[in-house]
Amino acid sequence: MREVAVLGVSMTKFGVSEKTNLEMFTEAGLEAMSNSNIESKDVEALFFGNCLGDFEEGQMHMAPFAHAELGLPMSAPATRFESACATATVAIRHAALLVGAGVYDVVLAGGTERATKMGTPLATKTFAMATQSQHEARAGLTFPGVFAMAAHMYSSKYGVDLPELKKNMAEVAIKNHYHGTLNPKAHFQKEIDLDTVLDGMMVADPLQLFDCCPFSDGASALVLAEAGKAKDLVKKPIYVAGMGQASAGSLYLQQDVTRVKARETAVSQAYKEAGVGPDDIDVVELHDCFTIAEILALEGFGFYEFGKAHDAAAKRETYLNGKVVVNPSGGLKSKGHPIGATGAGQVTEIVEQLRGECGPRQVEGARIGLVDTLGGDLGTVCNIILRS
Amino acid sequence: MREVAVLGVSMTKFGVSEKTNLEMFTEAGLEAMSNSNIESKDVEALFFGNCLGDFEEGQMHMAPFAHAELGLPMSAPATRFESACATATVAIRHAALLVGAGVYDVVLAGGTERATKMGTPLATKTFAMATQSQHEARAGLTFPGVFAMAAHMYSSKYGVDLPELKKNMAEVAIKNHYHGTLNPKAHFQKEIDLDTVLDGMMVADPLQLFDCCPFSDGASALVLAEAGKAKDLVKKPIYVAGMGQASAGSLYLQQDVTRVKARETAVSQAYKEAGVGPDDIDVVELHDCFTIAEILALEGFGFYEFGKAHDAAAKRETYLNGKVVVNPSGGLKSKGHPIGATGAGQVTEIVEQLRGECGPRQVEGARIGLVDTLGGDLGTVCNIILRS
Repeated sequence: MREVAVLGVSMTKFGVSEKTNLEMFTEAGLEAMSNSNIESKDVEALFFGNCLGDFEEGQMHMAPFAHAELGLPMSAPATRFESACATATVAIRHAALLVGAGVYDVVLAGGTERATKMGTPLATKTFAMATQSQHEARAGLTFPGVFAMAAHMYSSKYGVDLPELKKNMAEVAIKNHYHGTLNPKAHFQKEIDLDTVLDGMMVADPLQLFDCCPFSDGASALVLAEAGKAKDLVKKPIYVAGMGQASAGSLYLQQDVTRVKARETAVSQAYKEAGVGPDDIDVVELHDCFTIAEILALEGFGFYEFGKAHDAAAKRETYLNGKVVVNPSGGLKSKGHPIGATGAGQVTEIVEQLRGECGPRQVEGARIGLVDTLGGDLGTVCNIILRS
Repeated sequence: MREVAVLGVSMTKFGVSEKTNLEMFTEAGLEAMSNSNIESKDVEALFFGNCLGDFEEGQMHMAPFAHAELGLPMSAPATRFESACATATVAIRHAALLVGAGVYDVVLAGGTERATKMGTPLATKTFAMATQSQHEARAGLTFPGVFAMAAHMYSSKYGVDLPELKKNMAEVAIKNHYHGTLNPKAHFQKEIDLDTVLDGMMVADPLQLFDCCPFSDGASALVLAEAGKAKDLVKKPIYVAGMGQASAGSLYLQQDVTRVKARETAVSQAYKEAGVGPDDIDVVELHDCFTIAEILALEGFGFYEFGKAHDAAAKRETYLNGKVVVNPSGGLKSKGHPIGATGAGQVTEIVEQLRGECGPRQVEGARIGLVDTLGGDLGTVCNIILRS
């Protein structure tokens, strides 16, 4: 396989937007191409992520319309990927695999989502379609419920009292909101404190409002190219060092929801391919859809032993300048969660971190970064390790 | 790139089913693995096609659930593709590219759809989401409307009187229904005559009921492997000789709907890669979603000059034992159209034809076959050329 590099990256401001999915993706895609010093005619394929365009805008089959708005050549196929929240990461992984294979030299990848127009209760209900519909969604399961179960199971399995766990989960939210204040493209840019979280509305016991990430509108795109070509086009290409993607079935098959086995499988593929381990990672963008999800991820990566990551944020080990910097962008919690764009936004942050372009939230000397996106009720995990 | 082979293929009976998408896909997937002499543990990735599972069953993110039903390993990622009607063909193309690249040795690909439960008027309205929603669907455009415009434009551009064109379109339906009588897995297995078509309900002038394919329930799956491995597993592997995929935007950008430019681009990629031309093709499964669509496709492939294919069926040139056999399975028109499964059903038919396993509908001596699937309002075309 050839070496694959990320050239230009781009994301719209995440938050609430009046723009359509196509308008947002066009904005991100044009900027990514411009940042890569390429034109539309140079793009050989589009790997496009979107989850709910049909529900949001009555738009299925969105990839060729995005392709047309960007003025890509007819010979460059546009393909839509959908892997719930992991949608864009999965699209990017397939793009990188096909550039690595020599099928394409230069491609565009990313995603878009317009999630705020569905309204929050409806959005949660609609998005619950990513759980198993026949057995789980029909029983009333939504994603706050999945992660609430994980929190209870974590408390019980590891003997961490629920009040202590809730305080430690709140510290994850506080950290990510703090990081978000340093990111002008974040959905939320305001600090919160312990009282904000613990006084919040109960969503799914023990998860309160500020334990949950928002749904956001936004798009993000990036250009991938063969490494030799990348060096001719941009000053500082960032390289794809390793990738992994794994799948698991319904929750009743997974049994222990404190262990995201698909993540353990995916990240071990990525570590192996990159020739690195948890100690080598300088910066992480991980899937903190709920505060407990960040804790589970830290353990799944091998940064902490199982049952030991719950107080990582409380100890400030995952803050900027901490032991391993986690979600310097603000994460899903504060940067926001435009479902089908989220993974591309994570890659964008890691690339900018490895280039040293992140200003007040820069992780000093970051050389190796990890992207982690989880789709559905722990059913898809896609990991990408990038290096400068 | 390594040579890629198709091993076992499978499709459920297309038609009206009480089974869920997962049940149908599991049936097809298990049979495809069994026909390939492999077990679930041997599959390294699942390339899964589905269009409307969220509308049909409230099920998004279906790929990992299909993966679980089939008992595939967690390390084998399951990825959903959606390219409107071209969904499964696009999934299969990506599977073949990654086997060719050496990323995987053995993969499962295919698709499933449960389209009849939406009810016909709602299905047409729902499926119109694959046109451009902002400008086209909102103006009332549905797919019968798109192809009705193509028929009128064809009549006017090439000077074929509408009554003559309608009669010739009817002959396409008569042929494909005849072929369908020879296919026990076809949705419809009854012959029709000219009166059946011309007395049919008007759907979108000039298209009457029998000019339109049905929506169907069904699933289809197949195993792809590196050619060397394939020879160890099955007696007669069929080889992927060439592939193409191309994209076009909204109809207002395409202007001339009698020329599906994305098809002309995609099939020329496939011909070039396979080192063949239109004269080398023995059998075709093409996207006859409407009778006029078959006529346009025959011209797009270069089998006929533009404006000259309208009477191909009337002259029996596209029948079994004709000059080039078109849709011996019955095509979308008679075999049926389970949207996200259709492309895999087409590949299944071509593979069985090239193996000489098609009984009464066998194309004698078929060595090279072409698969053609069109998605949306001419926005995606994916072609696959197979050889024995």
